Amino acid sequence: NSNELVVLCRSVSFLSDRRCWLPSQAVVRAMSSSGGAPSPYTTLAISHPAESITHVELHRPEKRNAMNRAFWSEMVDCFNEIAGDPECRVVVVSGAGKIFTAGIDLMDMASDILQPEGDDTARISWNLRQIITKYQETFSVIEKCPKPVVVAVHGACVGGGVDLITACDIRLCTQDAWFQVKEVDIGLAADVGTLQRLPKVIGSRSLVNELALTARKMYADEAKSSGLVSRVFADKEAMMAGALEMAGEIAGRSPVAVQGTKINLVYSRDHSVAEGLNYMATWNMSMLQTQDVMKSAQAAMEKKSPKTIAFSKL
Amino acid sequence: NSNELVVLCRSVSFLSDRRCWLPSQAVVRAMSSSGGAPSPYTTLAISHPAESITHVELHRPEKRNAMNRAFWSEMVDCFNEIAGDPECRVVVVSGAGKIFTAGIDLMDMASDILQPEGDDTARISWNLRQIITKYQETFSVIEKCPKPVVVAVHGACVGGGVDLITACDIRLCTQDAWFQVKEVDIGLAADVGTLQRLPKVIGSRSLVNELALTARKMYADEAKSSGLVSRVFADKEAMMAGALEMAGEIAGRSPVAVQGTKINLVYSRDHSVAEGLNYMATWNMSMLQTQDVMKSAQAAMEKKSPKTIAFSKL
Amino acid sequence: NSNELVVLCRSVSFLSDRRCWLPSQAVVRAMSSSGGAPSPYTTLAISHPAESITHVELHRPEKRNAMNRAFWSEMVDCFNEIAGDPECRVVVVSGAGKIFTAGIDLMDMASDILQPEGDDTARISWNLRQIITKYQETFSVIEKCPKPVVVAVHGACVGGGVDLITACDIRLCTQDAWFQVKEVDIGLAADVGTLQRLPKVIGSRSLVNELALTARKMYADEAKSSGLVSRVFADKEAMMAGALEMAGEIAGRSPVAVQGTKINLVYSRDHSVAEGLNYMATWNMSMLQTQDVMKSAQAAMEKKSPKTIAFSKL
Amino acid sequence: NSNELVVLCRSVSFLSDRRCWLPSQAVVRAMSSSGGAPSPYTTLAISHPAESITHVELHRPEKRNAMNRAFWSEMVDCFNEIAGDPECRVVVVSGAGKIFTAGIDLMDMASDILQPEGDDTARISWNLRQIITKYQETFSVIEKCPKPVVVAVHGACVGGGVDLITACDIRLCTQDAWFQVKEVDIGLAADVGTLQRLPKVIGSRSLVNELALTARKMYADEAKSSGLVSRVFADKEAMMAGALEMAGEIAGRSPVAVQGTKINLVYSRDHSVAEGLNYMATWNMSMLQTQDVMKSAQAAMEKKSPKTIAFSKL
Amino acid sequence: NSNELVVLCRSVSFLSDRRCWLPSQAVVRAMSSSGGAPSPYTTLAISHPAESITHVELHRPEKRNAMNRAFWSEMVDCFNEIAGDPECRVVVVSGAGKIFTAGIDLMDMASDILQPEGDDTARISWNLRQIITKYQETFSVIEKCPKPVVVAVHGACVGGGVDLITACDIRLCTQDAWFQVKEVDIGLAADVGTLQRLPKVIGSRSLVNELALTARKMYADEAKSSGLVSRVFADKEAMMAGALEMAGEIAGRSPVAVQGTKINLVYSRDHSVAEGLNYMATWNMSMLQTQDVMKSAQAAMEKKSPKTIAFSKL
Amino acid sequence: NSNELVVLCRSVSFLSDRRCWLPSQAVVRAMSSSGGAPSPYTTLAISHPAESITHVELHRPEKRNAMNRAFWSEMVDCFNEIAGDPECRVVVVSGAGKIFTAGIDLMDMASDILQPEGDDTARISWNLRQIITKYQETFSVIEKCPKPVVVAVHGACVGGGVDLITACDIRLCTQDAWFQVKEVDIGLAADVGTLQRLPKVIGSRSLVNELALTARKMYADEAKSSGLVSRVFADKEAMMAGALEMAGEIAGRSPVAVQGTKINLVYSRDHSVAEGLNYMATWNMSMLQTQDVMKSAQAAMEKKSPKTIAFSKL
Repeated sequence: NSNELVVLCRSVSFLSDRRCWLPSQAVVRAMSSSGGAPSPYTTLAISHPAESITHVELHRPEKRNAMNRAFWSEMVDCFNEIAGDPECRVVVVSGAGKIFTAGIDLMDMASDILQPEGDDTARISWNLRQIITKYQETFSVIEKCPKPVVVAVHGACVGGGVDLITACDIRLCTQDAWFQVKEVDIGLAADVGTLQRLPKVIGSRSLVNELALTARKMYADEAKSSGLVSRVFADKEAMMAGALEMAGEIAGRSPVAVQGTKINLVYSRDHSVAEGLNYMATWNMSMLQTQDVMKSAQAAMEKKSPKTIAFSKL
Repeated sequence: NSNELVVLCRSVSFLSDRRCWLPSQAVVRAMSSSGGAPSPYTTLAISHPAESITHVELHRPEKRNAMNRAFWSEMVDCFNEIAGDPECRVVVVSGAGKIFTAGIDLMDMASDILQPEGDDTARISWNLRQIITKYQETFSVIEKCPKPVVVAVHGACVGGGVDLITACDIRLCTQDAWFQVKEVDIGLAADVGTLQRLPKVIGSRSLVNELALTARKMYADEAKSSGLVSRVFADKEAMMAGALEMAGEIAGRSPVAVQGTKINLVYSRDHSVAEGLNYMATWNMSMLQTQDVMKSAQAAMEKKSPKTIAFSKL
Repeated sequence: NSNELVVLCRSVSFLSDRRCWLPSQAVVRAMSSSGGAPSPYTTLAISHPAESITHVELHRPEKRNAMNRAFWSEMVDCFNEIAGDPECRVVVVSGAGKIFTAGIDLMDMASDILQPEGDDTARISWNLRQIITKYQETFSVIEKCPKPVVVAVHGACVGGGVDLITACDIRLCTQDAWFQVKEVDIGLAADVGTLQRLPKVIGSRSLVNELALTARKMYADEAKSSGLVSRVFADKEAMMAGALEMAGEIAGRSPVAVQGTKINLVYSRDHSVAEGLNYMATWNMSMLQTQDVMKSAQAAMEKKSPKTIAFSKL
Repeated sequence: NSNELVVLCRSVSFLSDRRCWLPSQAVVRAMSSSGGAPSPYTTLAISHPAESITHVELHRPEKRNAMNRAFWSEMVDCFNEIAGDPECRVVVVSGAGKIFTAGIDLMDMASDILQPEGDDTARISWNLRQIITKYQETFSVIEKCPKPVVVAVHGACVGGGVDLITACDIRLCTQDAWFQVKEVDIGLAADVGTLQRLPKVIGSRSLVNELALTARKMYADEAKSSGLVSRVFADKEAMMAGALEMAGEIAGRSPVAVQGTKINLVYSRDHSVAEGLNYMATWNMSMLQTQDVMKSAQAAMEKKSPKTIAFSKL
Repeated sequence: NSNELVVLCRSVSFLSDRRCWLPSQAVVRAMSSSGGAPSPYTTLAISHPAESITHVELHRPEKRNAMNRAFWSEMVDCFNEIAGDPECRVVVVSGAGKIFTAGIDLMDMASDILQPEGDDTARISWNLRQIITKYQETFSVIEKCPKPVVVAVHGACVGGGVDLITACDIRLCTQDAWFQVKEVDIGLAADVGTLQRLPKVIGSRSLVNELALTARKMYADEAKSSGLVSRVFADKEAMMAGALEMAGEIAGRSPVAVQGTKINLVYSRDHSVAEGLNYMATWNMSMLQTQDVMKSAQAAMEKKSPKTIAFSKL
Repeated sequence: NSNELVVLCRSVSFLSDRRCWLPSQAVVRAMSSSGGAPSPYTTLAISHPAESITHVELHRPEKRNAMNRAFWSEMVDCFNEIAGDPECRVVVVSGAGKIFTAGIDLMDMASDILQPEGDDTARISWNLRQIITKYQETFSVIEKCPKPVVVAVHGACVGGGVDLITACDIRLCTQDAWFQVKEVDIGLAADVGTLQRLPKVIGSRSLVNELALTARKMYADEAKSSGLVSRVFADKEAMMAGALEMAGEIAGRSPVAVQGTKINLVYSRDHSVAEGLNYMATWNMSMLQTQDVMKSAQAAMEKKSPKTIAFSKL
């Protein structure tokens, strides 16, 4: 059960000794199939593979996890709930089936995009702007959620998939993964996040432009060397094990520290260093008063891992 | 002729199957010599190697394409014309002769920089500021031009050359290329774009600072690993072929999509993610109403390449 | 003596011919032991290994250069003095003893952080904010100092060490170096610079987030490939020699050019390209009037190195 | 009925000839008592005094319209509904009973503010931040609603009341009205909008600071001369008539023009002029294609009032 | 002749003793009729009523100075020329005939606005955006021109007229003047400057919103009390005399001081105080080296007016 | 003694009932002569006219409080000390002798401004920039000091005086006061704050520009109607009494509330509303936990003045 899994996770020192740890195939399979718990969503499967870890799986495998109408609103509900759930300290996102996602479900969404309501150009524009803004929110909720989000990509990650993963905090992929900013191929500039976030996620502007303007595929090796992902795994099983372990590392630390770190990292991206420092000082003037610092400092002096500490919920 | 060339380009699937396509040497030579058409410029040679593609060649090979007075104003005229030319959908920039460019032509420019007009420090400063601002515009026009600009560098790219290429969208180079932020060597802080754009073009701040403060040369391999260029080619011929093919990929897609993508990528660089998303939604509320989306979506469903579609001019 | 050293430095063309130059072991040892000159600081050793170069050594080797109360204020005094010292044109920072720094000296600092003054949450917060702001200034002075700062890291660079090095301009390290954003391990979000500067120093956002959220170690190779450091050396001796030579390259150029470059690079990081260009033009309208430009231009035309020129102090 | 009222409104030329128009007392009384329609809210009464005009009345007269828990969430629901209601083109906000509002209902809200949940300072802070953010949204919805909001104040407008009215677009008051930034009197800095919006709403910084730091009352005359309100009326009846007429002026014009104007006015407040112009051009590139321009231009040439035109819903 | 006029101007101490000075009717008439010099423009009359003062007169009196196609480009040419003319130190703008301006010439402009080119919504939008951007530049040139611009309004100032005057530096009007933000009446949000500049030009946000949303007229008294204009004159003759005298005050001072003041005032509007101070220090590090400071300081010590000093051209 | 004075202050209800309260002439005279306590400053006299109130008097009456070298550094020391003094909750600034201040002491400062060090234009510029930056700090310390600063102006307030008062929070003046932005008269653009702060302090942009470009005097009535000052008093005695009473109102309230209000008002000036709200929420998440809220809320319910509460020091 999940308690045992946590114990297992904590007994392994993956990140400190740099060995490659692989959980049993059973656990990985469990994550991939997303257990038997009934999900409130039709496109997402939610599970809790270990204590304080929520697994969100894109779950329309028969449609290659294409993003249909339901998906765009379910993501918002899902991440709003996660943001408010004190049991959750970190999120893992992955895709069920053969690939991560084929991107937008053009068939299902056609009426919104191709035939927006209205009998006057201005009014059609007005409605389109509301639709785009709503769809942008679908991925911005990931960023607004204070819990770190690790995304694990296998196979294809196309169009809307790139919008999704650039809103996550940590990106992992399998050796067979590929990424494609597909939007120019269907006649539009990507409008739900890729053009805004991809340039702030990887360091090479030339590469960003090439990907967005030519819609060419980028494979795992280039994704790693360009910094889009920070790790590449041999296959999905290894990746899910790695994602779970990394999530365990995060979940085991003070949620005050971890979530404050995410919030300030996102803030810093969009502000000057001086602005970021000012906000940080104002943030920590209260957060440093947490008991977590005392507990953690004591553990550090006793050479204990922070993961041995029981932190209160946040 | 150019029509045949386009047909040729479109029959090759360079980007999708990742093979290395080489056009005939004739085409490449044609690009290098810039044909027989009389150019309105003394420092630039303009040609149209394929449909919708404009080739701008730095063309003072006997002076190693050094940037003289004429160059600084011809670039502005040239890119303003390109910006307004509905026949052009993408631009390739390269250098004629042995190297890309030796940078500023110090001999020709000396009077501007070393002996600015005025008999009072404030008035000399005033005039210098106008000169600098004018020179900055020489490269900012590349960025303001909504058509993507691919720059192909061989041999040396020195001083003003780095200012130029950082204002382009996609950077390619040959194996023998090298780059040098030369300005500190002549006693000044680079003031026409390098210090502003280079840090936003490559990911390593330490490297940017090292290059700008020591004026050391950076060679092709480091240019690739640092992300300054997104591709390195064996020689100029291969690079020009690659540049042409990449330009063809871009030219073959909806100009509404492509140019909207460039405009929003440039906007995003200078704004927060939230600001960028807001602008994007306002941009696309009209642009999504284009027939190009319908045409492209239909082609996508029929598994046809977007390059088979006839898009209206923009 | 130092004059001879400068002559030595200038006679070697390290950066232009890409050979690996190694100063005598004596010089390197001298740098490591920081000579016999009495320092006004208890945690820093200051020396002048060559003309115009100031060496700042973290110097509490018996405490692994842990940052105690004295350190936080001595850094401010030290860099304010350097900023105003016309004899200094470039700074090298390194650590004495076995490692660069173990980060904050938790024992010495505990009262500030764990038991801030005050009997009311708001008043404790008020005091904490002042402490954090003061500590932030400890590293911001490096950035505000107009002289370039090269930092050379060997062994461990933990917690506050990462805050320190991200405020420097150029980062070098040894093959055995490792870096750790340690703060989440002691229950807090890093609040003196890492969360603000690290994302603007390296290109991979996924990696930044992973390091800050999991506190895992990053070793030299990843530090190089991610762009955190721009060079890795075999050992400390080689690194100090390399740092000294790089510092010599910078010190040998016009201080007007070099310091103007640093100031505008820092400005550009926090502003849009258009803002940066405007500031740059306003900066250079006076700085271009320096005699250094004339001297440097003349040397360039005579094919002499800028390092042969005698520039006035700044 | 409301149709007749509209006809009445349109037959009166209040704004163009500067006379003071007074609707019948019946209409004004109807507005004050908010008719017989059952409201979905416990603290707000919603009515439709004329075509395209929604009247939102703070409606806890027995509690001097003090803002209790229900109020803070009902405002969000109410304005979200208004934002999406094509029948509404303009909103009038006023208060039922003797005064506009006494501000926050300290008794009802005490548990939130005085006893927030949590057993650790950081966790209490975390919860407080969520509460404050939620309360800020209560007034930000007014600003995000694209329909103009006219607020009519009589009697006292205290504390939260000032936060509310500064988020509205046009402010009117009676001769007996007074305003008080009350928060310092209860030991806190105003945190739901006054400190952010009041300085951008009136021109005298000295006055803003005085009001916020001393909590002194400001009466109608000073509110007018300082620009907080743009009109003062003799009594509530006259004010409601004036508000209704002004609302009629707005409702009678193209909703594409009116709502685009509000959105761009709010955008301009928070951006540089250059940023605002760029956004405006991108906005109007679609909005100018509306039939409303053609209809309005034709009416203008025929010397007809825009209020005679039938505009489509938005 | 103009020299005598200058002497006359300088012999009167209008601003220092606050009396109301009236030049002879001849001068005023001369300004109104704009002399016999042939103008290169069809919509503007240019004259030089006194040394260093350029008078730009909207000059289509038979069309109530309505802004036709020619006007929009002539303004750009005119102010670009003024910006580069060392003989001009200050500009006065006024309108010929019965009113200042009726705003846009709807008849002449209809094809641009009502029937923009293009057969696809996106392409029409693209063209409209270029038109709007071009028209915005018509007034932005006033702001970019470093010479102060005093605008003198009599009679009506409608629509585009408000866009124009908000881009000027100092606004004066006659007692019979009125102002109208007319755009909502023709179905569009004002897109060439009013919505961006008016809120930064007057202090009452409520008034700005009321004017822009209702298109009501504002008369001279309210224009003065709200701060839109800084002076009201009895009639056009008195106003032109006042404008000329004020222009003389400005023209008589150091152009380095005056134009640096304008540039920094515009910069400050769009930046934080800290940003503005930084820019100011960088600006004045050269400008303080002007001989004008020495000359002015000496005059000040000798109790002479700065207007007695002969400053070099700028 | 001062305790009695406080009692006196608190027994008068100046602000709530709008009567004009006049303290005895003895108190006012005491403030004007600044008592017998020896001051550490040569240009400032410091006194404590009532509990928690610090009075800073410009005190070189024989030189009309002209700002000499000593003044520029003493202000920094003085306000840094006040910022850290828990006994002080509010500051009153005024001028000794016949006028508030004649501005910069040109004789004393001439060497800095007219003959800056250096033998090269760039190096002179470099030194000037440091001087300007230092002088800017002289007034920025007022803004950075978290305690509110009330400034009381009588007679002339010229040049540097305007820089000073625009950095204060609340401005009062006598009927005979006048204000002059004098810098253009001595050949320079005002560079220590006026051009940055004045436009954000008063609402009429036209007036700001007129004052800065013509150096004309503005008298008390216009200062009041334009919003530069929020109150005008008959003479200095009445003004000092009013300033003291206003200071008493501020000093009597929670310092957590008051100083948090000032900090957030300054922050809001330089940020968008959304940024300001975010910062505010992060600020108050700790500050709302103060006991001052509980104490104040209880007093409010008991209908007691906040001035009856004993707040802890901050």
